[in-house]
Amino acid sequence: MDLIDETIAAIAPPDEAAMRDARDHQARLTKPPGSLGVLEEVSIRLAGLAGHCPPPLPVPAAVAVFAADHGVHAQGVTPWPQEVTAQMVANFLAGGAVVNAFAAQVGAEVTVVDVGVAAELDPAPGLLRRKIASGTADLTLGPAMTMDEARRAVAVGIEVARDRVSAGARCLLTGDMGIANTTASAALIAAFTGLPPERVTGRGTGIDDATHARKVEIVAAGLARHGLPAGDGADPLEVLAAVGGLEHAAIAGFVLGAAALRVPVVLDGVIAGAAALVAAALCPDVVGACVAGHRSAEPGHTAAIDALGLRPLVDLELRLGEGTGALLALPLVQGAVRVLHEVATFDSAGVSGKDAGDL
Amino acid sequence: MDLIDETIAAIAPPDEAAMRDARDHQARLTKPPGSLGVLEEVSIRLAGLAGHCPPPLPVPAAVAVFAADHGVHAQGVTPWPQEVTAQMVANFLAGGAVVNAFAAQVGAEVTVVDVGVAAELDPAPGLLRRKIASGTADLTLGPAMTMDEARRAVAVGIEVARDRVSAGARCLLTGDMGIANTTASAALIAAFTGLPPERVTGRGTGIDDATHARKVEIVAAGLARHGLPAGDGADPLEVLAAVGGLEHAAIAGFVLGAAALRVPVVLDGVIAGAAALVAAALCPDVVGACVAGHRSAEPGHTAAIDALGLRPLVDLELRLGEGTGALLALPLVQGAVRVLHEVATFDSAGVSGKDAGDL
Repeated sequence: MDLIDETIAAIAPPDEAAMRDARDHQARLTKPPGSLGVLEEVSIRLAGLAGHCPPPLPVPAAVAVFAADHGVHAQGVTPWPQEVTAQMVANFLAGGAVVNAFAAQVGAEVTVVDVGVAAELDPAPGLLRRKIASGTADLTLGPAMTMDEARRAVAVGIEVARDRVSAGARCLLTGDMGIANTTASAALIAAFTGLPPERVTGRGTGIDDATHARKVEIVAAGLARHGLPAGDGADPLEVLAAVGGLEHAAIAGFVLGAAALRVPVVLDGVIAGAAALVAAALCPDVVGACVAGHRSAEPGHTAAIDALGLRPLVDLELRLGEGTGALLALPLVQGAVRVLHEVATFDSAGVSGKDAGDL
Repeated sequence: MDLIDETIAAIAPPDEAAMRDARDHQARLTKPPGSLGVLEEVSIRLAGLAGHCPPPLPVPAAVAVFAADHGVHAQGVTPWPQEVTAQMVANFLAGGAVVNAFAAQVGAEVTVVDVGVAAELDPAPGLLRRKIASGTADLTLGPAMTMDEARRAVAVGIEVARDRVSAGARCLLTGDMGIANTTASAALIAAFTGLPPERVTGRGTGIDDATHARKVEIVAAGLARHGLPAGDGADPLEVLAAVGGLEHAAIAGFVLGAAALRVPVVLDGVIAGAAALVAAALCPDVVGACVAGHRSAEPGHTAAIDALGLRPLVDLELRLGEGTGALLALPLVQGAVRVLHEVATFDSAGVSGKDAGDL
């Protein structure tokens, strides 16, 4: 059994008893029942993931920014030059990007993983050099990756999840960098949800109408080239290899790795959403480990999280990637679990309940 | 000039030049323009408040939980006994409430201010004893407060804001506790927005249909008793005294105090929204200091923040109060400002911009 199969085999469904315990405990805490809204559900889901209540505090947290380039860039889907991927990796490593500022704000560690940048990157603190290829091939001309590349990139993600948890992380966050990666994301989301390209293809970094129209055509051409969507019988790894990116593959592995270790993984935006669809197609129970950090401005992202049955915690029209949306959600996730650890019950605090006679 | 007038006189309109600087700076940072969505606007507004760019980091932060009781409780608007207000104050001081857990999560200090609890509270660390009255009078029978009580409670809020900022706080957050205070909030919001009681009266802690119908009638009766809404010529402090709570008055003062000191104030839910309407009626420029932390499940809250022109940062169906929604938003506000301090520009980081030829 290889690493991917072994990881999938380790993923369990949510523990119903632990979820029931968390729901019962929420009802005894010194607050009106249900008054923490969506965060009560988050705490219950994470109890189900951990298998006990309260689940571990999701502290400390680690964001892994998976970086890779995309052959489909050659099709003119974005005005940004491909070298920006490597330049932004350097910016992350120098601490100058938004992901660094947000990580500092919420106390998360940043690791950058080169899984397929189309440039040689020098060793640097905080950089994991795990390059599988110097970017993908153009998905409109053939498969973006070979099956072997796709599997190896998924394995990189699993290994990064294991490494971060071994180093002490109790919450993982996805991040990504890759010029043109919203194009590959749209193709993956269309392939897994069956939605038409125009419904799931967005403006990425903020392209104009003409470039957007071209991008929709490119996504449609890529899907047609590979006979996608291929229906329920399709091998998720074949779909991934056909139209995905190396960072999508690695993030899919990262999500699988987190779920196998029963550690929550906060998904960032549309790239993570596309990757999580791959992971969920490989193993539906992986969704129990996932928290949708935010809702991106990209239309494909909403399609992806709807398909996964996830509700985003932050919804502020962000469309940056890097892990920024996941980092903003982190204190909400941590707060939701902290309530189960630290808040007094009506009995323990001597607080009167509702007067049933008045109800 | 008394403290309230002096505070209002110190409140300036947003500094347009600083806002322009912030907008220009956002466009130079290493991210696609506009990709931080609503958070870019937050950073620009806080530059306008500070009068320079970047504005100070809103760190450290202090939440003040203003506690008071309400005479309208006698009308059966809630199944919770009045003594729960004092019991929850004890819970806050013991560190056992959700506000404590969230404050610990985001690194904020908690101060509880007794501005009108209907019980004697012993001195305790973290408790400011500033009781103006042992709860308000029943707003359906006469004014909830005398004008003198209302003014003194507003002054308490101003003083607490000054004290917290003197102690080092660079971001203030509103909190509240008071059984029946969503009833007084609904009356205030109806009075200031002109919306009918049934549009702004919610289920508070989760009341049943019969209690909700009664609560709407009580709000309507209170408004009728005092001839509200009274139109544009009404004295905001008279409206406050007629149907508000002592904590609404104090929070209105807290907001005025923050604005006068050019320190941002993150508003919690419906009680803060009602209080902010009082403050904005006294001085419209106060809104420049306000950030809507979240959107409460209470319908009156959306009416209030819409009237204030504020967009909430968190929208998770919370309806707890205490400052919990404001605390969840705090890292988002801090992250938004941190971007202006720490993120590199395209020039400084050597990152290529968009290729204009491709656009």
